[in-house]
Amino acid sequence: VAAEAGTLFLGLDAGGTKTAAGVVTPAGEVLSHVRISTAELRLGDALANLIELGRRAMADAGVERVAAVGAALPGPADAAELRLLAAPTIPEWEHVSLAAPLREAFRCPVAGDNDANAAALGEARFGAGRGRSQVVYFTVSTGIGGGIVADGRIFRGARGTSAELGHQVILPEGGPPCGCGGHGCLEALASGRGIAARARQALGVPSGEPFSAEDAARLARAGNTAALRVWEDTALYLGIGVCNAVNLLDPEVVVLGGGVATGAADLLLPGVRRVVAERCMPRLARPVEVVTAELGPAVGVVGAACLAMAAVEGAEL
Amino acid sequence: VAAEAGTLFLGLDAGGTKTAAGVVTPAGEVLSHVRISTAELRLGDALANLIELGRRAMADAGVERVAAVGAALPGPADAAELRLLAAPTIPEWEHVSLAAPLREAFRCPVAGDNDANAAALGEARFGAGRGRSQVVYFTVSTGIGGGIVADGRIFRGARGTSAELGHQVILPEGGPPCGCGGHGCLEALASGRGIAARARQALGVPSGEPFSAEDAARLARAGNTAALRVWEDTALYLGIGVCNAVNLLDPEVVVLGGGVATGAADLLLPGVRRVVAERCMPRLARPVEVVTAELGPAVGVVGAACLAMAAVEGAEL
Repeated sequence: VAAEAGTLFLGLDAGGTKTAAGVVTPAGEVLSHVRISTAELRLGDALANLIELGRRAMADAGVERVAAVGAALPGPADAAELRLLAAPTIPEWEHVSLAAPLREAFRCPVAGDNDANAAALGEARFGAGRGRSQVVYFTVSTGIGGGIVADGRIFRGARGTSAELGHQVILPEGGPPCGCGGHGCLEALASGRGIAARARQALGVPSGEPFSAEDAARLARAGNTAALRVWEDTALYLGIGVCNAVNLLDPEVVVLGGGVATGAADLLLPGVRRVVAERCMPRLARPVEVVTAELGPAVGVVGAACLAMAAVEGAEL
Repeated sequence: VAAEAGTLFLGLDAGGTKTAAGVVTPAGEVLSHVRISTAELRLGDALANLIELGRRAMADAGVERVAAVGAALPGPADAAELRLLAAPTIPEWEHVSLAAPLREAFRCPVAGDNDANAAALGEARFGAGRGRSQVVYFTVSTGIGGGIVADGRIFRGARGTSAELGHQVILPEGGPPCGCGGHGCLEALASGRGIAARARQALGVPSGEPFSAEDAARLARAGNTAALRVWEDTALYLGIGVCNAVNLLDPEVVVLGGGVATGAADLLLPGVRRVVAERCMPRLARPVEVVTAELGPAVGVVGAACLAMAAVEGAEL
């Protein structure tokens, strides 16, 4: 391993709940993977702790240096400066540039982006989109985000805030309020939170009682008609979000990641595919594949490492 | 003019109704503009007639050669080969490559794309999007199409069929049937045809009587409440289509072109802007401008010339 140390990449994944670091090969193989809670990261100096976590991942992989470091950040970020523009889960990093301190600590090029873009690049290079250069990635978990990969690179738009796939408007009139201030957005309807809220209402769950999208999935799998109907509607909404992305971007494959999309793929994927076949622009619907993500919990670290690879290739930044 | 002939571009715009040719300077100035009906183009050999029209435009501008030729084609097209994949208005060109014969006729590099992409590039370079590198262009006329310009280049997607902006699904359930085979698409609701159909119903126009979107606009301007309501709904639908494009692509400016968007801008633009301000992802809604197209009837020829410029710059193809 020591001989190829100069061609390895360190991925740092600072998530809302967990923070991870791992050493990744140019082929996407994870050589080491260490994790702490983000609460623990924030005990003392979060940046020093992140650097320490990265060093532990390198020690675990038996390497003393890496070719580049990539960071997946939990919010909209200035990719060039590794600066979070909004950081609800790690507020001490808001508007703080992490590029220079990370560069100095690891003595190599650094790169970063929001976690959804990092995951999109990871899935495009080494996951469900491998071998494809045009990939749209949806992350469906508590909220809904995403990333667009075009010609193998992250499509960032004018301000680095493209791919807000969860804020497509699905219901023009009415629809539940969305965290963004609007209403009827895909996130308000088909995220874990949105599904739970709609299922609560459909099933008449008392407001004091805890009830999650997982609970709604369990009921649907047990044959509860109202719960099944909630998932059918979810597949319709998500399917329309996928149609719109396909009609605008013409990708080769759409990857559905995140806990809800992968955990409830049995309840969602057939319906989403049906909606795409029926409602997408015909000459786009046929060749586009809709698949679930493949990298699992390592997606953050692999995606972050892909940012590092892209930086070294000069394809990004 | 003869001295700068080598830096001039010929734009060919083969539209559904009219076919035009013009010589355009690198600054986007139209030196000549000749037009015939597409019915006339199709009398005899349409390609020979198009070449003849191009030569007339060059003669009118007093030039014997151009640096490159660009063609805007009336349907989805293979941009590399200038081959229409579907050509309802000029069926004899379907699946026929125009690249080699045009290259031979004009003895220079040639480039082409569908008319919406050409118009998008024209507006981005010399129209309402000039000075911006990230532009989304909607064309709202009989149907609704569009083009995406990213980093100053046409964003084509995997198969060259991106930017089907008119086939965003606006109404998940119900909604009028769309020409694409789906229902509830933006085009079915907010195109000239869609507006006329909705206004007919709202106003109780007898089915035998001719009635167009222009008629609906006239009634709305005269204060007819039902007609005004049709245009308010149109602005809502179009505004949501703009929101979705902004949320996915993060452009600097959205340009609304085509006969309906420019002809009824008074009835549409304020409502579209209101919807964008209210329903778009907040950090995207604020800085994005929504404006009407500026190039008018010359957009086809200027857009086609921009394809030629891009080909010579090596930025396209």
